[in-house]
Amino acid sequence: MYHFTALVTLLAIAFYFFTCINVSRSRTKTGIKVPAMSGHPDFERAFRIQMNTLEWMPIFLPALWLFAVYIGDAAAAGLGVVWIIGRVVYFIGYSKAAAKRGPGFAIQGIAAIALWAGAIGAVVLRLV
Amino acid sequence: MYHFTALVTLLAIAFYFFTCINVSRSRTKTGIKVPAMSGHPDFERAFRIQMNTLEWMPIFLPALWLFAVYIGDAAAAGLGVVWIIGRVVYFIGYSKAAAKRGPGFAIQGIAAIALWAGAIGAVVLRLV
Amino acid sequence: MYHFTALVTLLAIAFYFFTCINVSRSRTKTGIKVPAMSGHPDFERAFRIQMNTLEWMPIFLPALWLFAVYIGDAAAAGLGVVWIIGRVVYFIGYSKAAAKRGPGFAIQGIAAIALWAGAIGAVVLRLV
Repeated sequence: MYHFTALVTLLAIAFYFFTCINVSRSRTKTGIKVPAMSGHPDFERAFRIQMNTLEWMPIFLPALWLFAVYIGDAAAAGLGVVWIIGRVVYFIGYSKAAAKRGPGFAIQGIAAIALWAGAIGAVVLRLV
Repeated sequence: MYHFTALVTLLAIAFYFFTCINVSRSRTKTGIKVPAMSGHPDFERAFRIQMNTLEWMPIFLPALWLFAVYIGDAAAAGLGVVWIIGRVVYFIGYSKAAAKRGPGFAIQGIAAIALWAGAIGAVVLRLV
Repeated sequence: MYHFTALVTLLAIAFYFFTCINVSRSRTKTGIKVPAMSGHPDFERAFRIQMNTLEWMPIFLPALWLFAVYIGDAAAAGLGVVWIIGRVVYFIGYSKAAAKRGPGFAIQGIAAIALWAGAIGAVVLRLV
Protein backbone atom coordinates (compact mmCIF):
# COMPACT_ATOMS: atom_id res chain seq x y z
CA MET A 1 0.00 0.00 0.00
CA TYR A 2 1.10 3.55 -0.71
CA HIS A 3 -0.45 5.51 2.16
CA PHE A 4 1.86 8.54 1.99
CA THR A 5 1.53 8.85 -1.79
CA ALA A 6 -2.26 8.52 -1.48
CA LEU A 7 -2.30 11.28 1.16
CA VAL A 8 -0.11 13.60 -0.94
CA THR A 9 -2.34 12.92 -3.98
CA LEU A 10 -5.43 13.97 -2.03
CA LEU A 11 -3.68 17.08 -0.66
CA ALA A 12 -2.48 18.05 -4.16
CA ILE A 13 -6.06 17.66 -5.44
CA ALA A 14 -7.33 19.82 -2.55
CA PHE A 15 -4.88 22.58 -3.44
CA TYR A 16 -5.84 22.36 -7.12
CA PHE A 17 -9.51 22.56 -6.07
CA PHE A 18 -8.65 25.74 -4.13
CA THR A 19 -7.19 27.31 -7.34
CA CYS A 20 -10.55 26.53 -9.04
CA ILE A 21 -12.53 28.19 -6.25
CA ASN A 22 -10.17 31.16 -6.47
CA VAL A 23 -11.23 31.65 -10.13
CA SER A 24 -14.88 31.83 -9.01
CA ARG A 25 -13.98 34.37 -6.31
CA SER A 26 -12.03 36.36 -8.89
CA ARG A 27 -15.11 36.40 -11.17
CA THR A 28 -17.11 38.00 -8.34
CA LYS A 29 -14.38 40.56 -7.58
CA THR A 30 -13.66 41.57 -11.18
CA GLY A 31 -17.20 41.20 -12.59
CA ILE A 32 -16.16 38.82 -15.40
CA LYS A 33 -19.24 36.63 -15.93
CA VAL A 34 -19.25 33.04 -17.27
CA PRO A 35 -18.59 31.91 -19.96
CA ALA A 36 -16.12 34.80 -20.59
CA MET A 37 -12.50 33.82 -19.86
CA SER A 38 -10.84 37.23 -20.21
CA GLY A 39 -11.45 40.96 -19.72
CA HIS A 40 -9.59 41.82 -16.48
CA PRO A 41 -5.89 41.15 -15.74
CA ASP A 42 -6.57 39.98 -12.15
CA PHE A 43 -9.13 37.45 -13.39
CA GLU A 44 -6.84 36.31 -16.21
CA ARG A 45 -3.98 35.65 -13.76
CA ALA A 46 -6.29 33.72 -11.40
CA PHE A 47 -7.48 31.67 -14.39
CA ARG A 48 -3.93 31.04 -15.60
CA ILE A 49 -2.92 29.82 -12.12
CA GLN A 50 -5.73 27.26 -12.18
CA MET A 51 -5.06 26.29 -15.81
CA ASN A 52 -1.33 25.88 -15.28
CA THR A 53 -1.94 23.70 -12.22
CA LEU A 54 -4.42 21.65 -14.30
CA GLU A 55 -1.92 21.43 -17.16
CA TRP A 56 0.69 19.87 -14.85
CA MET A 57 -1.70 17.36 -13.26
CA PRO A 58 -1.23 14.71 -16.02
CA ILE A 59 2.55 15.10 -15.61
CA PHE A 60 2.64 15.17 -11.80
CA LEU A 61 0.12 12.47 -10.83
CA PRO A 62 1.28 9.60 -13.12
CA ALA A 63 4.96 10.41 -12.43
CA LEU A 64 4.25 10.50 -8.66
CA TRP A 65 2.55 7.10 -8.69
CA LEU A 66 5.04 5.37 -10.99
CA PHE A 67 7.85 6.71 -8.77
CA ALA A 68 5.99 5.36 -5.71
CA VAL A 69 5.57 1.91 -7.29
CA TYR A 70 9.07 1.61 -8.79
CA ILE A 71 11.12 3.41 -6.12
CA GLY A 72 9.17 3.89 -2.90
CA ASP A 73 6.19 5.41 -1.14
CA ALA A 74 8.00 7.79 1.24
CA ALA A 75 10.38 9.20 -1.39
CA ALA A 76 7.50 9.78 -3.83
CA ALA A 77 5.43 11.48 -1.14
CA GLY A 78 8.38 13.68 -0.14
CA LEU A 79 8.86 14.94 -3.71
CA GLY A 80 5.07 15.33 -3.94
CA VAL A 81 5.12 17.63 -0.91
CA VAL A 82 7.85 19.73 -2.60
CA TRP A 83 5.59 19.96 -5.67
CA ILE A 84 2.67 21.22 -3.55
CA ILE A 85 4.93 23.78 -1.83
CA GLY A 86 6.11 24.99 -5.26
CA ARG A 87 2.47 25.31 -6.37
CA VAL A 88 1.60 27.37 -3.27
CA VAL A 89 4.59 29.69 -3.89
CA TYR A 90 3.53 29.94 -7.56
CA PHE A 91 -0.03 30.79 -6.51
CA ILE A 92 1.08 33.55 -4.13
CA GLY A 93 3.57 35.04 -6.61
CA TYR A 94 1.40 34.91 -9.74
CA SER A 95 -1.59 36.30 -7.79
CA LYS A 96 0.49 39.46 -7.18
CA ALA A 97 2.02 39.82 -10.68
CA ALA A 98 2.84 37.70 -13.75
CA ALA A 99 6.53 38.55 -13.26
CA LYS A 100 6.51 36.90 -9.79
CA ARG A 101 5.44 33.44 -10.97
CA GLY A 102 9.01 32.19 -11.64
CA PRO A 103 10.32 30.77 -8.33
CA GLY A 104 7.23 28.67 -7.48
CA PHE A 105 7.06 27.41 -11.04
CA ALA A 106 10.71 26.34 -10.88
CA ILE A 107 10.24 24.47 -7.56
CA GLN A 108 7.22 22.48 -8.77
CA GLY A 109 8.90 21.86 -12.16
CA ILE A 110 12.04 20.43 -10.56
CA ALA A 111 9.95 18.20 -8.24
CA ALA A 112 7.84 16.90 -11.16
CA ILE A 113 10.89 16.28 -13.37
CA ALA A 114 12.63 14.45 -10.50
CA LEU A 115 9.56 12.19 -10.14
CA TRP A 116 9.48 11.59 -13.89
CA ALA A 117 13.25 10.95 -14.21
CA GLY A 118 13.32 8.62 -11.20
CA ALA A 119 10.35 6.66 -12.49
CA ILE A 120 11.64 6.25 -16.06
CA GLY A 121 15.09 5.31 -14.78
CA ALA A 122 13.64 2.62 -12.52
CA VAL A 123 11.32 1.29 -15.28
CA VAL A 124 14.16 1.07 -17.81
CA LEU A 125 16.36 -0.74 -15.26
CA ARG A 126 13.65 -3.41 -14.87
CA LEU A 127 13.31 -3.82 -18.63
CA VAL A 128 17.01 -4.20 -19.56
CA MET B 1 -10.15 -6.21 -8.70
CA TYR B 2 -12.29 -3.10 -8.96
CA HIS B 3 -14.65 -4.01 -11.78
CA PHE B 4 -17.41 -1.53 -10.92
CA THR B 5 -14.99 1.36 -10.45
CA ALA B 6 -13.29 0.44 -13.74
CA LEU B 7 -16.67 0.44 -15.50
CA VAL B 8 -17.68 3.82 -14.01
CA THR B 9 -14.29 5.27 -14.99
CA LEU B 10 -14.80 4.21 -18.61
CA LEU B 11 -18.38 5.57 -18.63
CA ALA B 12 -17.22 8.89 -17.13
CA ILE B 13 -14.54 9.12 -19.84
CA ALA B 14 -17.15 8.36 -22.50
CA PHE B 15 -19.36 11.19 -21.25
CA TYR B 16 -16.39 13.56 -21.15
CA PHE B 17 -15.55 12.52 -24.73
CA PHE B 18 -19.14 13.40 -25.69
CA THR B 19 -18.64 16.95 -24.28
CA CYS B 20 -15.55 17.25 -26.53
CA ILE B 21 -17.50 16.14 -29.61
CA ASN B 22 -20.22 18.63 -28.66
CA VAL B 23 -17.65 21.46 -28.95
CA SER B 24 -16.86 20.35 -32.53
CA ARG B 25 -20.57 20.24 -33.36
CA SER B 26 -20.97 23.70 -31.85
CA ARG B 27 -18.13 25.01 -34.05
CA THR B 28 -20.06 23.83 -37.13
CA LYS B 29 -23.34 25.35 -35.90
CA THR B 30 -21.92 28.72 -34.84
CA GLY B 31 -19.19 29.06 -37.50
CA ILE B 32 -16.36 29.57 -34.95
CA LYS B 33 -13.30 28.08 -36.68
CA VAL B 34 -10.22 26.61 -34.94
CA PRO B 35 -8.07 27.84 -33.26
CA ALA B 36 -10.53 30.57 -32.08
CA MET B 37 -12.04 29.78 -28.65
CA SER B 38 -14.63 32.59 -28.47
CA GLY B 39 -16.95 34.70 -30.61
CA HIS B 40 -20.43 33.19 -30.08
CA PRO B 41 -22.17 32.63 -26.70
CA ASP B 42 -23.50 29.16 -27.69
CA PHE B 43 -19.99 28.02 -28.64
CA GLU B 44 -18.49 29.55 -25.49
CA ARG B 45 -20.97 27.69 -23.28
CA ALA B 46 -20.29 24.38 -25.11
CA PHE B 47 -16.56 24.99 -24.64
CA ARG B 48 -16.97 25.85 -20.94
CA ILE B 49 -18.97 22.62 -20.38
CA GLN B 50 -16.10 20.58 -21.83
CA MET B 51 -13.45 22.62 -19.99
CA ASN B 52 -15.22 22.39 -16.65
CA THR B 53 -15.60 18.62 -17.04
CA LEU B 54 -11.89 18.41 -17.92
CA GLU B 55 -11.02 20.63 -14.93
CA TRP B 56 -12.76 18.21 -12.55
CA MET B 57 -11.19 15.05 -14.01
CA PRO B 58 -7.99 15.27 -11.89
CA ILE B 59 -10.18 15.69 -8.79
CA PHE B 60 -12.75 13.02 -9.64
CA LEU B 61 -10.62 10.17 -11.01
CA PRO B 62 -7.91 9.99 -8.30
CA ALA B 63 -10.50 10.47 -5.52
CA LEU B 64 -12.70 7.75 -7.08
CA TRP B 65 -9.84 5.23 -7.20
CA LEU B 66 -8.42 6.00 -3.77
CA PHE B 67 -11.96 5.67 -2.35
CA ALA B 68 -12.31 2.31 -4.16
CA VAL B 69 -8.99 1.03 -2.80
CA TYR B 70 -9.38 2.32 0.77
CA ILE B 71 -13.16 1.88 1.25
CA GLY B 72 -14.68 -0.33 -1.43
CA ASP B 73 -15.41 -0.92 -5.10
CA ALA B 74 -19.22 -0.77 -5.02
CA ALA B 75 -19.44 2.37 -2.85
CA ALA B 76 -16.90 4.18 -5.06
CA ALA B 77 -18.76 3.17 -8.21
CA GLY B 78 -22.09 4.31 -6.70
CA LEU B 79 -20.72 7.78 -5.97
CA GLY B 80 -19.11 7.77 -9.42
CA VAL B 81 -22.51 7.18 -11.01
CA VAL B 82 -23.89 10.16 -9.04
CA TRP B 83 -21.01 12.25 -10.40
CA ILE B 84 -21.85 11.23 -13.99
CA ILE B 85 -25.56 12.02 -13.43
CA GLY B 86 -24.57 15.46 -12.06
CA ARG B 87 -22.41 16.04 -15.14
CA VAL B 88 -25.30 15.11 -17.48
CA VAL B 89 -27.64 17.51 -15.61
CA TYR B 90 -24.92 20.20 -15.79
CA PHE B 91 -24.51 19.61 -19.52
CA ILE B 92 -28.26 19.91 -20.22
CA GLY B 93 -28.67 23.00 -18.02
CA TYR B 94 -25.57 24.91 -19.16
CA SER B 95 -26.35 24.12 -22.83
CA LYS B 96 -29.60 26.09 -22.38
CA ALA B 97 -28.24 29.02 -20.37
CA ALA B 98 -25.30 29.87 -18.06
CA ALA B 99 -27.80 30.53 -15.23
CA LYS B 100 -29.05 26.91 -15.42
CA ARG B 101 -25.69 25.28 -14.70
CA GLY B 102 -26.08 25.31 -10.89
CA PRO B 103 -27.98 22.11 -9.93
CA GLY B 104 -25.89 19.71 -12.03
CA PHE B 105 -22.70 21.38 -10.84
CA ALA B 106 -23.80 20.96 -7.21
CA ILE B 107 -24.61 17.23 -7.67
CA GLN B 108 -21.25 16.40 -9.25
CA GLY B 109 -19.41 18.60 -6.72
CA ILE B 110 -21.01 16.84 -3.74
CA ALA B 111 -20.23 13.40 -5.24
CA ALA B 112 -16.58 14.36 -5.90
CA ILE B 113 -16.13 15.89 -2.43
CA ALA B 114 -17.69 12.78 -0.83
CA LEU B 115 -15.16 10.61 -2.70
CA TRP B 116 -12.30 12.88 -1.65
CA ALA B 117 -13.41 13.12 1.99
CA GLY B 118 -14.00 9.36 2.29
CA ALA B 119 -10.62 8.60 0.75
CA ILE B 120 -8.62 11.03 2.90
CA GLY B 121 -10.44 9.87 6.04
CA ALA B 122 -9.62 6.23 5.30
CA VAL B 123 -5.98 7.03 4.43
CA VAL B 124 -5.45 9.04 7.61
CA LEU B 125 -7.02 6.22 9.71
CA ARG B 126 -4.43 3.80 8.29
CA LEU B 127 -1.56 6.17 9.05
CA VAL B 128 -2.39 6.99 12.67
CA MET C 1 3.90 -5.39 -13.10
CA TYR C 2 3.19 -3.33 -16.20
CA HIS C 3 6.65 -2.20 -17.25
CA PHE C 4 5.81 -1.46 -20.90
CA THR C 5 2.66 0.48 -20.02
CA ALA C 6 4.61 2.42 -17.38
CA LEU C 7 7.29 3.27 -19.95
CA VAL C 8 4.72 4.39 -22.55
CA THR C 9 2.95 6.50 -19.90
CA LEU C 10 6.19 8.31 -19.09
CA LEU C 11 6.99 8.83 -22.79
CA ALA C 12 3.47 10.18 -23.44
CA ILE C 13 3.89 12.59 -20.53
CA ALA C 14 7.27 13.68 -21.92
CA PHE C 15 5.72 14.44 -25.29
CA TYR C 16 2.88 16.35 -23.65
CA PHE C 17 5.49 18.31 -21.64
CA PHE C 18 7.18 19.18 -24.95
CA THR C 19 3.88 20.65 -26.28
CA CYS C 20 3.78 22.84 -23.11
CA ILE C 21 7.35 24.06 -23.67
CA ASN C 22 6.44 24.76 -27.30
CA VAL C 23 3.75 27.21 -26.09
CA SER C 24 6.40 29.11 -24.10
CA ARG C 25 8.69 29.20 -27.15
CA SER C 26 5.77 30.43 -29.24
CA ARG C 27 5.16 33.26 -26.73
CA THR C 28 8.75 34.42 -27.25
CA LYS C 29 8.50 34.20 -31.07
CA THR C 30 5.11 35.91 -31.41
CA GLY C 31 5.43 38.36 -28.49
CA ILE C 32 2.17 37.23 -26.79
CA LYS C 33 2.84 37.80 -23.08
CA VAL C 34 1.20 35.91 -20.16
CA PRO C 35 -1.61 35.81 -19.15
CA ALA C 36 -2.94 36.53 -22.70
CA MET C 37 -4.02 33.36 -24.54
CA SER C 38 -4.69 34.85 -28.00
CA GLY C 39 -3.51 37.57 -30.39
CA HIS C 40 -1.38 35.73 -33.00
CA PRO C 41 -2.47 32.72 -35.10
CA ASP C 42 0.87 30.90 -34.66
CA PHE C 43 0.62 31.22 -30.88
CA GLU C 44 -3.04 30.18 -30.89
CA ARG C 45 -2.24 26.99 -32.85
CA ALA C 46 0.66 26.13 -30.51
CA PHE C 47 -1.70 26.66 -27.56
CA ARG C 48 -4.46 24.55 -29.13
CA ILE C 49 -1.97 21.69 -29.74
CA GLN C 50 -1.08 21.69 -26.05
CA MET C 51 -4.71 22.08 -24.95
CA ASN C 52 -5.95 19.30 -27.20
CA THR C 53 -3.23 16.96 -25.95
CA LEU C 54 -4.20 17.89 -22.37
CA GLU C 55 -7.89 17.37 -23.18
CA TRP C 56 -7.21 13.80 -24.32
CA MET C 57 -5.04 12.88 -21.33
CA PRO C 58 -8.00 11.88 -19.08
CA ILE C 59 -9.29 9.68 -21.92
CA PHE C 60 -5.96 8.15 -22.92
CA LEU C 61 -4.28 7.44 -19.56
CA PRO C 62 -7.16 5.68 -17.73
CA ALA C 63 -8.11 3.72 -20.88
CA LEU C 64 -4.45 2.71 -21.36
CA TRP C 65 -4.12 1.41 -17.79
CA LEU C 66 -7.48 -0.36 -17.65
CA PHE C 67 -6.61 -2.03 -20.98
CA ALA C 68 -3.24 -3.06 -19.51
CA VAL C 69 -4.85 -4.52 -16.38
CA TYR C 70 -7.79 -6.26 -18.10
CA ILE C 71 -6.14 -7.35 -21.39
CA GLY C 72 -2.36 -7.11 -21.20
CA ASP C 73 0.72 -4.97 -20.75
CA ALA C 74 2.31 -5.39 -24.19
CA ALA C 75 -0.93 -4.82 -26.16
CA ALA C 76 -1.74 -1.69 -24.12
CA ALA C 77 1.80 -0.35 -24.62
CA GLY C 78 1.62 -1.04 -28.38
CA LEU C 79 -1.60 0.98 -28.74
CA GLY C 80 -0.06 3.62 -26.48
CA VAL C 81 2.89 3.95 -28.89
CA VAL C 82 0.40 4.42 -31.77
CA TRP C 83 -1.28 7.18 -29.74
CA ILE C 84 2.08 8.97 -29.23
CA ILE C 85 2.90 8.65 -32.97
CA GLY C 86 -0.54 10.16 -33.79
CA ARG C 87 0.16 13.02 -31.38
CA VAL C 88 3.55 13.71 -33.03
CA VAL C 89 1.94 13.75 -36.50
CA TYR C 90 -0.82 16.03 -35.12
CA PHE C 91 1.82 18.36 -33.65
CA ILE C 92 3.76 18.62 -36.92
CA GLY C 93 0.62 19.10 -39.05
CA TYR C 94 -1.19 21.60 -36.79
CA SER C 95 2.05 23.61 -36.31
CA LYS C 96 2.04 24.24 -40.08
CA ALA C 97 -1.70 24.96 -40.54
CA ALA C 98 -5.04 24.24 -38.82
CA ALA C 99 -6.16 22.37 -41.96
CA LYS C 100 -3.29 19.87 -41.59
CA ARG C 101 -4.27 18.64 -38.10
CA GLY C 102 -6.60 15.87 -39.37
CA PRO C 103 -4.44 12.76 -40.00
CA GLY C 104 -2.56 12.87 -36.68
CA PHE C 105 -5.78 13.55 -34.81
CA ALA C 106 -7.41 10.52 -36.46
CA ILE C 107 -4.48 8.20 -35.58
CA GLN C 108 -4.44 9.16 -31.89
CA GLY C 109 -8.26 9.07 -31.75
CA ILE C 110 -8.42 5.53 -33.14
CA ALA C 111 -5.71 4.35 -30.74
CA ALA C 112 -7.50 5.92 -27.73
CA ILE C 113 -10.90 4.53 -28.76
CA ALA C 114 -9.36 1.06 -29.26
CA LEU C 115 -7.94 1.23 -25.72
CA TRP C 116 -11.30 2.37 -24.33
CA ALA C 117 -13.34 -0.22 -26.27
CA GLY C 118 -10.98 -3.08 -25.37
CA ALA C 119 -11.03 -2.09 -21.70
CA ILE C 120 -14.82 -1.73 -21.41
CA GLY C 121 -15.35 -4.99 -23.31
CA ALA C 122 -13.02 -6.85 -20.94
CA VAL C 123 -14.57 -5.25 -17.84
CA VAL C 124 -18.12 -6.10 -18.94
CA LEU C 125 -17.06 -9.72 -19.68
CA ARG C 126 -15.82 -10.06 -16.09
CA LEU C 127 -19.05 -8.62 -14.67
CA VAL C 128 -21.56 -10.76 -16.61
